[in-house]
Order: sequence, then structure tokens, then C-alpha cells
Amino acid sequence: MANEVRVKNTGLRGVTVADSKISFIDGDQGVLIYRGFRIEDLAKHSSFMETSFLLLHGRLPASEELAVFEKEVKKARRVPEYILENMTRWPGDAAPMDVLQACVPLIAMDDPDPGDRTREGMVLRTMGLMAKLPTLTAAWHRIRTGQEAIEPDNRLDHAANFLNMLTGEKPDPDTARDLDVCLILHADHTFNASTFACREVVSTQAHIYAGVTAGIGALSGSLHGGANQRVMDMLLELEDEPDVVGWIKNRLACGEKIMGLGHAVYRVGDPRAVYLKKMGQDMARRTGGAKLLELSETIERAALAEFAAQGKTGIQPNVDFYSAPVYHLMGIPGDLFTPVFAISRVAGWCAHIIEETFAEAQGKPALYRPKAEYIGDYCGLMGCEYTPSDKRGQ
Amino acid sequence: MANEVRVKNTGLRGVTVADSKISFIDGDQGVLIYRGFRIEDLAKHSSFMETSFLLLHGRLPASEELAVFEKEVKKARRVPEYILENMTRWPGDAAPMDVLQACVPLIAMDDPDPGDRTREGMVLRTMGLMAKLPTLTAAWHRIRTGQEAIEPDNRLDHAANFLNMLTGEKPDPDTARDLDVCLILHADHTFNASTFACREVVSTQAHIYAGVTAGIGALSGSLHGGANQRVMDMLLELEDEPDVVGWIKNRLACGEKIMGLGHAVYRVGDPRAVYLKKMGQDMARRTGGAKLLELSETIERAALAEFAAQGKTGIQPNVDFYSAPVYHLMGIPGDLFTPVFAISRVAGWCAHIIEETFAEAQGKPALYRPKAEYIGDYCGLMGCEYTPSDKRGQ
Repeated sequence: MANEVRVKNTGLRGVTVADSKISFIDGDQGVLIYRGFRIEDLAKHSSFMETSFLLLHGRLPASEELAVFEKEVKKARRVPEYILENMTRWPGDAAPMDVLQACVPLIAMDDPDPGDRTREGMVLRTMGLMAKLPTLTAAWHRIRTGQEAIEPDNRLDHAANFLNMLTGEKPDPDTARDLDVCLILHADHTFNASTFACREVVSTQAHIYAGVTAGIGALSGSLHGGANQRVMDMLLELEDEPDVVGWIKNRLACGEKIMGLGHAVYRVGDPRAVYLKKMGQDMARRTGGAKLLELSETIERAALAEFAAQGKTGIQPNVDFYSAPVYHLMGIPGDLFTPVFAISRVAGWCAHIIEETFAEAQGKPALYRPKAEYIGDYCGLMGCEYTPSDKRGQ
Repeated sequence: MANEVRVKNTGLRGVTVADSKISFIDGDQGVLIYRGFRIEDLAKHSSFMETSFLLLHGRLPASEELAVFEKEVKKARRVPEYILENMTRWPGDAAPMDVLQACVPLIAMDDPDPGDRTREGMVLRTMGLMAKLPTLTAAWHRIRTGQEAIEPDNRLDHAANFLNMLTGEKPDPDTARDLDVCLILHADHTFNASTFACREVVSTQAHIYAGVTAGIGALSGSLHGGANQRVMDMLLELEDEPDVVGWIKNRLACGEKIMGLGHAVYRVGDPRAVYLKKMGQDMARRTGGAKLLELSETIERAALAEFAAQGKTGIQPNVDFYSAPVYHLMGIPGDLFTPVFAISRVAGWCAHIIEETFAEAQGKPALYRPKAEYIGDYCGLMGCEYTPSDKRGQ
């Protein structure tokens, strides 16, 4: 039992709640590390499959291990037929994050032992979820636009297969590699809100699917994963704006935020954003998206100048700011940006779910149960007097 | 920004994270209060509808207000046709909690403005969820057993309508009242794991449906709402056991737990269990379920004697221990006990979701983002050296 601690209304900022071996952030230095490796090295050398193996197993795989891992994920890409059939009945304007949140429990129903709490069983289910979230996201987009879902193509790697299922066209190798790198960059980020939700839910011994479903819910919020879609909304709004700098100044003067700028943890810049900006610039040159990238850079410059004038430091583009134009240039619809985040983050979520499960096995008090301070009506321990309803005023 | 606080691996026990006006527990005195009123007074005098109004609005309604509230909830009982159609395709052995977890986002899809963050809008959506969870639970049970779903009957009150949709028979008034009281008793319990999951998810500005979906996930865990089903499993296992006392002794000697005994917060007994035990005894006399109640009491006596012999005090039946035989005697299948918990708790979850939403509006840092202490591989801020895969050992 912990001593009594009061951290009221702080959103648990600065409150260390657990040990973790999965990832590490140095916000002052702008460093993000997965299992010892810098995110920049993984983005340069690794693949999303290899990085997921690293997150799950705590070490990089040997060549044959990676081949087996990739093959197992490919084998799990198909989703139960009833889900695709169900989708044809859903409202065509359903939010894709609601679709994913519904689909994960629908997958659980197809699992003969969803509550398996062995490490091997949980890793296998992680691979199943990694394989299926892209299929579900792409299938929903096809079905809502009146098209047939496209079957997974096992000759294609993870990112390329997703883009093929989504657009019906095999992407060029550069685009496929860029998306794969985006998935690496988004795969984990210590105890962010969605990851903490996953850990919290499974701390009750709920199954891994229930944990991931909660993670998807938390990620959908516009203060979390939902932000990348809102960055895109802003870019589209400003496409024909003659005075972008004035728009930014005006917005900040009114006390409003610019989506995609600033982060709760990073003080000198988000290392993922630095990488994504460079990726966006290269991609813009390749695909003729220079205007969109220039707009993003104009917004960044104008906002940073304004922050500097106000004496505010440390507000820099976060991971959402440049992932928005990057995804747009890849042809991904704006409301699928957050599902793409989920397609990546599911690897980290599950690594954390497994860590939480075995932390409990090692004696951590099981479920997360914080306290609230009661500040409501109080008539003593005997309670307020209950008056019959016809004696009450409104 | 809070100061740095370390409460590692404590499951946030004893950590006060927020103010709340909704409910209050005095674990040392065995008291549970909703908005100032003792749970015993509400169980005796109130209804689940009235108690839900109290939880949501912070005061008891006048007669006309209650009538309007009840009418609005009744009007919202039907679920979208596509959900019932979808259910006919799901695996018949799907866990009912997975079904509910899938259904809430499916309801969100039917809402033209699920992210409405006005208080009125959120209360309206709460009433919709209160109305629909019973319909969904009953419909799933009918469909999985090869029967047609039964339409809501607006001549029946909340609990009676649920039992009618489930069994096809209108319950007698005593049974309907008993279930209504069970719903009152389970409706809120401060920052339990599922409620905290709801609050955490919506702290990202995710919509109320995403919050409730996470709550259902957390509740499904066997350390939380899932426990009532496991109590029933134990009762069924012991029905023909000649030496119940020996079975209990043996189980405790092996360091195993008895489901439904003990609580993280109550030290002198759970006030809800006291009420449910009495209800079970009355019901057993009425329905001929005396044997089941006697078995429950035998287990309680044997376990408490054993705890006393071991010098352990304060382990008493919790809310799950006597709700199991009560639900069984009402004819509710064991794997629907946890969904019935959700049917009740959704009122509390949503009251907390609304409170969390407006706490943020008043300046609480938005999302819950605790810290973890990194204890994993570390090669300094430059990161470990990435070696190509063919150079790695297994």
C-alpha cells in the first residue's frame, strides 16, 4: 500500500507510476529511444516489422527470426468474413476510429481463447492485431466508398500492402518505404494517454483486445492521435489563404492553439517531427506536393516567430504536424490519418499490455485504482435525508 | 506542472488524482454515498432511473422531472437495425462483454454528433446508452440462442423491460424491483478501474462512446466486474460438493483466493453486499432457491472462519458475492452478470465522463499522462549501435 499522495487535477504529469523497459524519452534533449535504440537509427535502418519485434521481444531479431515474424503477420492479415459483411450495413459516414473500436472486439469473438495470458499467446495476438488493423482500415474505406474490399497481397510488405488495399494500386518503393518509416516513428511513446489506457484496462485481467480497444478510443481524441487529422483540416483551410502569417497571428492573439505545435514532454523539438519534415520535403519534390510543404513550413515559421515574440520557448512541431502533409501526399484520406497512427501504435500498446501483465505476475498490486477527493454534497456518514419526490422543488 | 512524484507499481492506491462530487466511500465505516445520499436509503426508497438522475444532475428530481427523464430513456431503447442484423452473423459463443464493447461504437456511428461536449448533449447521450445497453444485452442472448430479439415494451419500467426482453416473460413485481435495486447498488463507486478508464479516455477529448467502451473493457476483467460471473462458476462447482468447508480450507491453504470475498477499499464489509445478502435470502424464500443461498452462506462462514484463524481481518463479501446468486435466481445466465453490471454502471461512468469533461474546461491539464521510469536497455543518449540483421545472434 502506497502512502497517501495528492496529485489532484494534474493529469498525473510528473507522476511516475511504473517501471518500463520499452521506451524512453529525454524531453530536454529531444531524444526518443525504443529498447535502447534511437528512433533516428531505427527510421534509417530498420523496418516496422523489425521494430515491432524489438518492442515486443526487447531485442532485434536475427534474419531468420525476422523472416518468421513477417511470415506470421502476413498469414494473419485476413479478417473474419462477418466483419466485412457487417461493414456493408454501417452508416457510410461512420468515423473510421469508431469502426476500428468496434472491429477489435469483433476480432476477439473469433479468438477461441482471447484471455490467454501466456507471453507467447499474447505476442501471437499482437501479431494478429498488427496484421488486421490495416486490413480493417482499408476495407472500411473501400466499402464506404461503394467499392469491394481488396484482399491482402502477401507478396507485398506491411506498408505497401496497406496502400494497395486502400487505393487498389501498388505504391512505388519510395512511398512504401516512407509509410513504413512513419509506422516506425509512431510505434511507441512511453506512457502516453492511449498506452496508459491499454495498461489500465488490462490491469483488471481484461483481455488484450479490450486493452487495444480502449487504446483506440483514447487515441481518437483530438488532444491525442486525433490531432493529425486536425492539422490536415487546417492545411486545407489555409490552402487558398492569401495571408497565412496574419491568420496565425490572429489565431494566437485570440488565445487559440495551432494544431500540431507543442508537446507535453519535448522541450527542444520532437525528434519524430524533424524526421517527418525531411521526409515531407523529399516527398514533395518527388510527387509535386511542394505547395503543401511550403504551407506547412510557413505556418511553422510564423507560429514560432510569434511564440518567440511572446517570450514562449520550447513550442515546436510535434509528430502530428508533418505527418499530416506526408500522409496526404501518399493519398491517404484525412480521416484515416488517426487509424494509420493506430496501425503503428498497436505494436507499442501490445508491448505495454504484455509488460503490464507480467509486472502483475511479479507482484504489482493488480488494478489501477486511484482515489478522488469527495467535494460534493455531504450530510455526514448517515447521509442526506431522502424526501419523497412530490415534496421536492425543482 | 506537478512536482515529481514517485508511486511506482502501486496501482495508484492511495493516490488522489482528482476532485469529484459524485460518490464517496468510507471504507473503515462501510459507507457508500452517492451525491450525499447513503446507498441504503436509495436502495430502499429510490429507483434506478431516479438514482441515475441524481448521479447525473447532482440532485434528486421533482416528480415531473423524473417522469420526463423516464420517458426520454424509454424513447431511446431501440437500437439501430444494422446492429441486430450484424449480431446474427457473430459467433454464437462470443463473450457478451465483447458484444457490448463492439456495440457501443456501433451506436456512436448512428449519432450525427457523437463528440458533442455540451452538458445537455452528454446527458442525452447517457440516457441513450442507459436505454440501449439492456436492449443489446437481451438481444444478443436471444439471437445467440436462436430466438428473435424481443422489442422493448414501453409499458414496462427499466428493470422489468430488460427481464422481459431477455426471457420473453414479464417478471413479477418483486423480481423487477429486486433487479432495479441491484442496478441502484452497482451504479457508481468513485474512481474504480473502469470509471478511471472512462475518465482517462475522454480526457483526450475522445467522445463519450469511446469512454464507455473503455469502461466496458475494464469492467470485463475478472479482477473487476468479471468477478460476479466467477462467483457463480464457483457456486455451480460446489453445488454437489459434500465437503464445502474442506474445499474452502484447501483452497485458502494453497494460497488461492475465494472469488467475491475482500475489497480494495472496504475494511469492515461492503454495504452493497449486506443489502444483496438480505435480498438473496428473501428471494430464496420466494423462489425456492434456499439451497443456493445456503451454499453462499456456508462459503462465507467457512472462509471468514479460516481468515480469522489466519489472523486476517477485514475480508468480507463484496458486491459480487451475493449478486451472483441473486441474478441466478432471477433467471439471468451467468455470462450476463457482468453485462448487467455494465447496464447499471453506465450511469456512473457517464456522470464521471461529464465531470471530467467540465473539470478540463475549468483548467485541469487535459489528458492523463503519467510517467514511467525507464529500466530497459540503455547505451546513453546516442543509443545502442544498430547492427545489420545478418550480424546478430539469436
